[in-house]
Amino acid sequence: MSAERDWRQTVAAKQQQRQSDIDAFIADQDPALVEKITSIDDVVVLSKLLATGELKSEDVTKAYITSLTEVLFSEAIQDAQRLDEYLRENGKPIGPFHGVPVTLKDQFNVKGYDTTLGYTVRALKPVSEDAALVKMLRSMGAVIIAKTNVPQSVMWGETENPLYGLTTNPMNAEYTPGGSTGGEGAALYMKGSILGWGTDIGGSIRIPSHMMGLYGLRCSNSRLPHWGCLVSTDGQEHSPSTIGPLARSLSTIHHAIREIILHEPWKSDYNVSPVAWRQNMYDEYSSRKLTIGLFLDDGIVRPHPPITRVLQQAAAALRAAGHEVIDWPLDLHAESIELIDELFVVDGGQDIRQDVEAGGEPFIPAIESLVNAGPAISVYDYWQLNKRKAALRQAHLNKWKSVKSPATGRTVDAILMPVMPHSAVPHQASRYTGYTKIWNLVDYVALAIPGGKVEVGDCDAQWDYAPRNETDEWTGSVWRDRKGEMAEMGLPVGVQIVGGRLEEEKVLAIGKVLDDLLRA
Amino acid sequence: MSAERDWRQTVAAKQQQRQSDIDAFIADQDPALVEKITSIDDVVVLSKLLATGELKSEDVTKAYITSLTEVLFSEAIQDAQRLDEYLRENGKPIGPFHGVPVTLKDQFNVKGYDTTLGYTVRALKPVSEDAALVKMLRSMGAVIIAKTNVPQSVMWGETENPLYGLTTNPMNAEYTPGGSTGGEGAALYMKGSILGWGTDIGGSIRIPSHMMGLYGLRCSNSRLPHWGCLVSTDGQEHSPSTIGPLARSLSTIHHAIREIILHEPWKSDYNVSPVAWRQNMYDEYSSRKLTIGLFLDDGIVRPHPPITRVLQQAAAALRAAGHEVIDWPLDLHAESIELIDELFVVDGGQDIRQDVEAGGEPFIPAIESLVNAGPAISVYDYWQLNKRKAALRQAHLNKWKSVKSPATGRTVDAILMPVMPHSAVPHQASRYTGYTKIWNLVDYVALAIPGGKVEVGDCDAQWDYAPRNETDEWTGSVWRDRKGEMAEMGLPVGVQIVGGRLEEEKVLAIGKVLDDLLRA
Repeated sequence: MSAERDWRQTVAAKQQQRQSDIDAFIADQDPALVEKITSIDDVVVLSKLLATGELKSEDVTKAYITSLTEVLFSEAIQDAQRLDEYLRENGKPIGPFHGVPVTLKDQFNVKGYDTTLGYTVRALKPVSEDAALVKMLRSMGAVIIAKTNVPQSVMWGETENPLYGLTTNPMNAEYTPGGSTGGEGAALYMKGSILGWGTDIGGSIRIPSHMMGLYGLRCSNSRLPHWGCLVSTDGQEHSPSTIGPLARSLSTIHHAIREIILHEPWKSDYNVSPVAWRQNMYDEYSSRKLTIGLFLDDGIVRPHPPITRVLQQAAAALRAAGHEVIDWPLDLHAESIELIDELFVVDGGQDIRQDVEAGGEPFIPAIESLVNAGPAISVYDYWQLNKRKAALRQAHLNKWKSVKSPATGRTVDAILMPVMPHSAVPHQASRYTGYTKIWNLVDYVALAIPGGKVEVGDCDAQWDYAPRNETDEWTGSVWRDRKGEMAEMGLPVGVQIVGGRLEEEKVLAIGKVLDDLLRA
Repeated sequence: MSAERDWRQTVAAKQQQRQSDIDAFIADQDPALVEKITSIDDVVVLSKLLATGELKSEDVTKAYITSLTEVLFSEAIQDAQRLDEYLRENGKPIGPFHGVPVTLKDQFNVKGYDTTLGYTVRALKPVSEDAALVKMLRSMGAVIIAKTNVPQSVMWGETENPLYGLTTNPMNAEYTPGGSTGGEGAALYMKGSILGWGTDIGGSIRIPSHMMGLYGLRCSNSRLPHWGCLVSTDGQEHSPSTIGPLARSLSTIHHAIREIILHEPWKSDYNVSPVAWRQNMYDEYSSRKLTIGLFLDDGIVRPHPPITRVLQQAAAALRAAGHEVIDWPLDLHAESIELIDELFVVDGGQDIRQDVEAGGEPFIPAIESLVNAGPAISVYDYWQLNKRKAALRQAHLNKWKSVKSPATGRTVDAILMPVMPHSAVPHQASRYTGYTKIWNLVDYVALAIPGGKVEVGDCDAQWDYAPRNETDEWTGSVWRDRKGEMAEMGLPVGVQIVGGRLEEEKVLAIGKVLDDLLRA
């Protein structure tokens, strides 16, 4: 390993391997069948067709592979054939994901394949065991068809690395699909998958979901099995990566989470807490009038006009349906965001630097900035940051108990807020993840759902104001410079629904209430 | 604050305060009533007498205060009077702990009183808010009567500090009651309390329970509310302190845990996972034949003969009742114990050193050794230890799934093993906590219950063997030198029952099965 190693050789070898895998599986399928299959956005709908045999697992797998642009798996076809055979022989599906094509962010270990995290040094080193989630998915019948791209080190809200290059937004190659689960974002948008799994350490599931018009759920730590899903800064426990699904329908997300939890993931991963699926919690929040806390602007980076408008429309839809929407105060936000930024670099960037340097590859600019953001601190000083974090987490809990509707005296059931201060932007233009990473610090459940699109009318919104800081100024300038183009593309705009720690059922229920209103 | 500060002034002031508090409450009670009250070891029995008004809360509180030797609270009598009044007016108890006198290790914040952790620098600085557990206990009717002694920094298995001095074993002042929850151990043994709350970061609940013939439960992290219970090395999240109860009856432990969980502690402490009380789990393990993994010796420090004998008797009792006892293999033990020792000192002792030096007090020898055990390491290296820990936790989970009864193919329901390699020992003679701290590393639930006593016959056991290491040699010599005395005192010997992470209900159920057999 080494400064001397030629990382370009690794890149060439890896890309050639991928190309031959792709070439081998460009199936000469009936385009109408492919179209029929990939037009299904809901895993529940697809599963029914697979369970009755109306669709063959092999055809579904091939249809998805056809439209994939990332790494492919020859194993997937064999798996699909075995599943079709199982159904023929047993007259029933093997499990709740029977024949469902699934893609995974390139952090999940899949036996026989690399887990790169976007580092060249980790390429061409196949792992020997499936991640805990992958084992569960396979045992329930899912067909793993691909792994998808991430930024170098996985620590950025866009998707670029020296190994696979830049993942672009299928709507406009000059734009990012977001990150770090950006490969999933692009693949799902392109119907290259129906269910993707990502990770979120600062917004990495929610950001691409928002930018690509998808649904994405950041679960709390310890709800889903993370074992065998590799991370950079491995061993940090202050605000760990959590896994979660991305999809084109909320029903798919709900199905995925519910089935995984029903299969008792705490038996597969030491870190999963035995919190059973709480259908009663889901039903309660699905059926009663809600109290929602709303904020449009965190006071640090002002969202672009379409973000604000879409949220206001969502709030209006909730009110029109008889729910109450109250203001969510901004105390604790700035200090929480500041603290997680400090925590990101407590090792002085050593962990990431070692992997990049071992590969001999260049840094991508955002990661170079990250590893140079500050010197390593002592373990003692690190613990002082953890103390601040604990105090903030307790303060957020107390805040949630104290913010009440003036009308009813009720506390809020969820917070409605932006995912990002902007829609998809040109590559390297996204510079603020405060709206997402605050919930990583606090370990709250957060769901991104599509809220609307950038519209031509948004361009007329008043946009002259004194910038609050450099990031705010930059973000504001992106709107000023690009608004016409963004409106013309009709870029997706998501909204974020946030609940407390380990309240996945509640957040899914409230997400469905709002999603039904927005889709109506 | 300062090298110049005279810590002796603080000690004198604090001890005088305590003495005047005690003097004010040496009640001139009827000795027969005190005897009647303190002879009750089970909170459930006491609660019934309090709920019917057969015993007055004020009398119970006064009876307990009379026999207490630690800090007292004038507030307790007022609380008790209020509770008696409540019962008179409402005809029903205020909650499940109505009038129950409770003591707390000197780590739990109690409004208006110090939380010292055994440091002089923290004395005479009353805190402004109750800990989350204390709030819950009070709201359920408990009467907080005292806080009890700990070792300087709370990081030792005995109980001594420069502020309050040495806590001795009521059976023999030359012996330790164990630690770090040693004040509770002594107070409960002396009937100075009926329910004590401690913390366990390496065995601190189980060790004094074992040495004093008590029951003590180490819960998993995130099951009970730790907020407002202060610790040294605060901010370390690698293997955090957890709280748990100590008592003279298992019924008391069960009642305490169950009632706290039924009162949804996750609403009071951000870190508590919403794992509801699982009565079905308790009932299952209470009623079916069990498979128990047994080991007598961890291969590092050989237990004294009475420890081994008591465990063998417990195993025989289980077998006689139709349960199966199989060998528990020792793989993972040595490396787990070695790792937690490394983790204890990753800050090079800085946190503890700062508190000791700020007080200007001398180190107690065990803590001086601890803070000088090694230099501080980098955050990056710290994360590498956390990675080893994660791998070990997953390996323990996999081991639990793979160790099976040759006869039935069943995995074990719990592990039965020593708490310590010895009973209570002379002060400063306990030097090995490997039997307890391994479960802190893995975050498993572990219950200490009384198993028997050191007997004269144990002295005849063969005790010549080549020592494995210095600690083993030392521990062996303690038996050789003291066995006659230990047998004469009939020192208590506990056994430890261990279940998986967050399996408190299962461990309590199995504990009761064994306890009933041992008491029969």
